[in-house]
Amino acid sequence: MDLLEKTIKSIRPVKDEWYDTAQKHLDNLTKPPGSLGRLEEFARRLVAITEDARPILDKKVIFTFAGDHGIVDEGVSAYPKEVTPQMVFNIVAGGAAINVLSRHAGSDVVVVDIGVDHDFGTVEGLVDRKVMRGTRNFAKGPAMTREEAVKCIECGIELADSYALKGYRIVGTGEMGIGNTTPSSAIVAVLTGSPVAEVTGRGTGISDDALSRKARVIEEAIRLNNPDPKDAIDVLSKVGGTEIGGIAGLVLGAASRRIPVVVDGFISTAGALIAHSIQPSVKDYMFAAHQSVERGHRMALQAMGLTPILDLGMRLGEGTGAALAMLLIEGGLKIYEEMATFAEAGVTDETIN
Amino acid sequence: MDLLEKTIKSIRPVKDEWYDTAQKHLDNLTKPPGSLGRLEEFARRLVAITEDARPILDKKVIFTFAGDHGIVDEGVSAYPKEVTPQMVFNIVAGGAAINVLSRHAGSDVVVVDIGVDHDFGTVEGLVDRKVMRGTRNFAKGPAMTREEAVKCIECGIELADSYALKGYRIVGTGEMGIGNTTPSSAIVAVLTGSPVAEVTGRGTGISDDALSRKARVIEEAIRLNNPDPKDAIDVLSKVGGTEIGGIAGLVLGAASRRIPVVVDGFISTAGALIAHSIQPSVKDYMFAAHQSVERGHRMALQAMGLTPILDLGMRLGEGTGAALAMLLIEGGLKIYEEMATFAEAGVTDETIN
Repeated sequence: MDLLEKTIKSIRPVKDEWYDTAQKHLDNLTKPPGSLGRLEEFARRLVAITEDARPILDKKVIFTFAGDHGIVDEGVSAYPKEVTPQMVFNIVAGGAAINVLSRHAGSDVVVVDIGVDHDFGTVEGLVDRKVMRGTRNFAKGPAMTREEAVKCIECGIELADSYALKGYRIVGTGEMGIGNTTPSSAIVAVLTGSPVAEVTGRGTGISDDALSRKARVIEEAIRLNNPDPKDAIDVLSKVGGTEIGGIAGLVLGAASRRIPVVVDGFISTAGALIAHSIQPSVKDYMFAAHQSVERGHRMALQAMGLTPILDLGMRLGEGTGAALAMLLIEGGLKIYEEMATFAEAGVTDETIN
Repeated sequence: MDLLEKTIKSIRPVKDEWYDTAQKHLDNLTKPPGSLGRLEEFARRLVAITEDARPILDKKVIFTFAGDHGIVDEGVSAYPKEVTPQMVFNIVAGGAAINVLSRHAGSDVVVVDIGVDHDFGTVEGLVDRKVMRGTRNFAKGPAMTREEAVKCIECGIELADSYALKGYRIVGTGEMGIGNTTPSSAIVAVLTGSPVAEVTGRGTGISDDALSRKARVIEEAIRLNNPDPKDAIDVLSKVGGTEIGGIAGLVLGAASRRIPVVVDGFISTAGALIAHSIQPSVKDYMFAAHQSVERGHRMALQAMGLTPILDLGMRLGEGTGAALAMLLIEGGLKIYEEMATFAEAGVTDETIN
């Protein structure tokens, strides 16, 4: 059995009894029941995901998958393709937003070249898992072969596996790839059945004209490639991207290892949607970091029943939302671990109505 | 001139040129312009508030003002009055939610007895600034005299002053006081002109019956005391609380010292509304930490034009939302301070549309 199939089969929904165990402890803490809202949800979910009444989040990592996109030839992005490798170097050097926010959240950052259209040679701090030098222009034919798409997913699974073995307790998704809101919109349109115009946004900041062109390009490409909405790998290969495949694999791999995975913004959510379409039980392991400004993100989250943690008007990607959300998830866990109980503190827990 | 009047007069709106200075730097950083949304807003505002192109947030403190309320005799709260001193001891001992989340945010917590109905004697770690042993039942007459209300506000101003001198760079508001959503609803109703029923919620979790009783009690108390909506000190003294006055003073004091102040949930926002009614320029110095579940919070924030940073379904108070929001505000500052510029990173910053 190959890695992907084995991983899919090993994923189980989390068990309700763990939520109950966690809630019982939360209700003994010195606060009105439920008054910490989603912080309590985060704690409950961490307990249920890890099947551990005392979960730990000491080692955190965000994976920033980098890839290029043939579709940028159609004029769908505000920035030229060369920015992808430039930003990879920037992340490796520690100067990008994801570096700053990961340091703030106490998380490591791992940059993975899964499909950048640039020959990096050996760069210290860059993980070379290149599947291809950029996808093919999916306005002209499939972005990837099915084999390439599976290879991208398996790259994500392998990273989840190897970081689980290294003792990491929570993973975040991130990406860097000029043009990658275009395949993301295509994936979300196909997998949620939404009209393309409703899931296509301005990405890094294109004009009105470029926005209409982008939606038209996506619509025509979907017609040309005819991806099968019941077959997420077909969708990924025909109108997706390498980094999106890597993210899908990371989500599957984390769920199979019972590790919580914090899904960043729009592109990451497109990857998560691929994973969810392959194996719906991954939902139990995902935290939706934030509501991105990018149109289509809301629909992708709703399709999986996920509620974003933050809404700060962000649209950068890289994993920046995931880093911030990790801080809040960790806050929920600390509440669970560190607060005094009513008995310990000698506080009256009887209400009077 | 007395302390309150002097403080009010010393507060100035922040200057637009500082926002521009900060934005110029933000637009040089390796990200599409504006793509970090509110994180960029936080950085801009910190620069403008401090009038410092390189602001620092090394020392943070959250003040949890504790006070009791005569109005609990009317059956408006789910918990008995004795819980206020019990929770004060819990916070002093480090076991409450505010302790956990402040540690998480790298903030100190200062618990202030401004009006608890309990004789603490000397307790290490508790700041004794008691103005009175609980307010009087404002269903029967004014909660405080005007002098007591001013004393509460001046307590907050003095704390802001003394912590500014100790080198603290950001302050957060918090409170503990059984029954204190009742005076908060009364204040918000009077100062925003909203119907009482629309700004009265369940607090720590009262039943439907108790909720109708609470709204009726507030309506009748407003009729009886007839506070003047144009005179916030009159409102505070007649239907307010000691801790709410302390928070109003902290906001005024922070603004006068040009220190950012993170306003926690509903009760804190009622205090902020008092400060804002006295001196509208305090708005420039405030960050609204989160959207509380408590009805009426939204209206109070809207009345001041503030947009909450978080929305996590919380309704605990103590300053818990302020602690979490500080982490995000600090994230915005780190972006501003630590990210590489396009020039430093050799990243193309020309867009192509």
